Amino acid sequence: MSLADQSPAAVLVFQTLLQHGPLSRAEIGRRTGLSPGAVTKAATPLIADGWITEAGRPSVERTTGRPATLIAVRAARARFAGVKVTGDELIGVLADLTAQPLASRRAPLGSRDVGTVVLAIGRLVDELREAAGLVESDAIHGIGVTIAGDVDGRTGHVQYSPFLDWRRVPLAQLVESGTGVPTVIENDVRALTVAEQWFGAGAGLSSFALVTVGAGIGAGLSVGGRVISGAHGVAGEVGHLPVGAIDRTCTCGNTGCVEAVASTHAITEQARQATGDPELTMAEAVRLAHAGDPAVRAVFTHAGHTLGLALASVANLIGPERIVISGEGVASYDLFADQIRQTFADHAFGAAADCDLVVRPLPFEEWARGGAAVAAQRVFAPVKQATAPFRPADPYGSVHA
Amino acid sequence: MSLADQSPAAVLVFQTLLQHGPLSRAEIGRRTGLSPGAVTKAATPLIADGWITEAGRPSVERTTGRPATLIAVRAARARFAGVKVTGDELIGVLADLTAQPLASRRAPLGSRDVGTVVLAIGRLVDELREAAGLVESDAIHGIGVTIAGDVDGRTGHVQYSPFLDWRRVPLAQLVESGTGVPTVIENDVRALTVAEQWFGAGAGLSSFALVTVGAGIGAGLSVGGRVISGAHGVAGEVGHLPVGAIDRTCTCGNTGCVEAVASTHAITEQARQATGDPELTMAEAVRLAHAGDPAVRAVFTHAGHTLGLALASVANLIGPERIVISGEGVASYDLFADQIRQTFADHAFGAAADCDLVVRPLPFEEWARGGAAVAAQRVFAPVKQATAPFRPADPYGSVHA
Repeated sequence: MSLADQSPAAVLVFQTLLQHGPLSRAEIGRRTGLSPGAVTKAATPLIADGWITEAGRPSVERTTGRPATLIAVRAARARFAGVKVTGDELIGVLADLTAQPLASRRAPLGSRDVGTVVLAIGRLVDELREAAGLVESDAIHGIGVTIAGDVDGRTGHVQYSPFLDWRRVPLAQLVESGTGVPTVIENDVRALTVAEQWFGAGAGLSSFALVTVGAGIGAGLSVGGRVISGAHGVAGEVGHLPVGAIDRTCTCGNTGCVEAVASTHAITEQARQATGDPELTMAEAVRLAHAGDPAVRAVFTHAGHTLGLALASVANLIGPERIVISGEGVASYDLFADQIRQTFADHAFGAAADCDLVVRPLPFEEWARGGAAVAAQRVFAPVKQATAPFRPADPYGSVHA
Repeated sequence: MSLADQSPAAVLVFQTLLQHGPLSRAEIGRRTGLSPGAVTKAATPLIADGWITEAGRPSVERTTGRPATLIAVRAARARFAGVKVTGDELIGVLADLTAQPLASRRAPLGSRDVGTVVLAIGRLVDELREAAGLVESDAIHGIGVTIAGDVDGRTGHVQYSPFLDWRRVPLAQLVESGTGVPTVIENDVRALTVAEQWFGAGAGLSSFALVTVGAGIGAGLSVGGRVISGAHGVAGEVGHLPVGAIDRTCTCGNTGCVEAVASTHAITEQARQATGDPELTMAEAVRLAHAGDPAVRAVFTHAGHTLGLALASVANLIGPERIVISGEGVASYDLFADQIRQTFADHAFGAAADCDLVVRPLPFEEWARGGAAVAAQRVFAPVKQATAPFRPADPYGSVHA
């Protein structure tokens, strides 16, 4: 039986166990608000169908009464593949129901042609099956493909991918047809934010932002346990906040964008101007800056200032508990870290400056795992939800952001 | 019996009726996911205690079966007073359980002394009672006081009010002691956003922002039915987004803040510089701009450009369905409307530009009503909630922002 066919109480019990790990029935009741009888009633079909299992006794002995049995999610009950697509490579991870990785593989992309990429995704999933030692009868329950750009998870279409130069590609459907496995797609930064919220630097936080700095600059914003996706599909576009210098034009056509100053490409371009060397690479710019070249250092400092303004904007608007900074750009983070922190401290308003700034290098395998997490969530957060019940905006409840 | 003592199902039924108006039992079941038996079980104590009532038959006849009885919230079951405190005036509204106004009154403030203001709030609540024709036995169930600045609703302290020059004032406790009525306090813009979400321009939207332009520039952000309040108490600080010109210093000490360019005070100051008249008032600046004075017009255009950048920042980060623009500043909105819309369209990223911009003059009585709404929500959204259940970040669910 699919989880989607279980009762709302059963789904709630399952979600609670997934988030908190093994719990006693009494603890499940406390956390869900369900009565002991309702917990038992909800758990019974989940146990019968193998979604959860009795996992033994807690290690801390209680002083009175018999020790309570713990209940836990059965991680092996389902498997999900996550694939991140970049301009020249696929990165794949096979994960269990709790998004723990079972295997990972990479595959170069010979071409950015849609058909080639779809076939390569199918092959990569087969390789992941083999690497994890799965047999013919071991099903993969879902595939989550993540990709930079404007990705509409609802329709399964990549509306626009700048790195692949794709427009309106029905990628979810194509991968699903090719593999026979239910497939979802998601913007790569948003999928990484889902993963960080579930089992990374955002776990247990009422709100956090994940800002990625690299070829592009993006962000996922998690508020009250949900990653904001925007009423019109756009959200977290930190790279296009108009806080930058207006003397540089962004790839989007505007001036003033953060991305036009602080992306890897923008830094390389500015370092070329600063040195007069039109062939300078990012790696060389980093080396020059480390060696103390003042003109190149100034480029990084300026990028750091602009990123600091962007992070302060996020803090002043959303007030997250933490901002996690990741992406390829953090490899040279030491070159602009001081300026980011200084500018952030200057421009964060009042207590917004208490927001925790954390740098976290996340390999592309973690991004791929985000795809697996998004696919897994389809199992326990069915798409066809009822309208969300009215939750009055209680400003003092557990969700502060 | 307090609503807080009702079962979770009863509270859910009540909230659903409050949001949607009269519904049949079947419709309540559909919207809450409760079984018909559970709806009846939940409704019975609510009817017995007068929170809801059977309200007659729907006007549209069903073609088969007998028409269903509608159930509705009993608006008269409870009353709440909302008071907005400004630097020189109190604005009060008495409202019923559905936040419909029963009476409104204003009272000038002779002094900004805490004791004086607390006494004046008590007197204003008495006047509201009288104006609404309440008798001795008619209880007021809660008071919501709203005030600009850093207001900590959890502790009931005004941490900092720039207009009153208050710091760390335990206002909720003082008003509650003086009146004998349970009192909550909230930041005024956030309270207005709660009101707009409940029965104003934000009703039924998955997300919206309310931006107020006047003596200060602030915003309330509603995402997924909740008004964001920030992990550290700061959120929606649109006035301190660093998108403005760096040649003006903000009251917060920074340069680049929106408020330093586009607040009423900032516009007046810039118009004085532009005209060389150190005594020029805002009203005169508006008159000169309407008369076509190019230097003063340029001040408004520049303010509009900066506001447009701020709104684009909100749209790019949050992606709200709608941005509502309000505050005293909208009285002269025609002077910068074109520039706001132009700059917003230029800098909103992709589909974020589809965000609806709406101008909505809201008198201070609506702000006071926000206080009543916040007080009312305490009744049906008890403060001591259990930890919010894990809601996996389903990016495709009903909450898009």
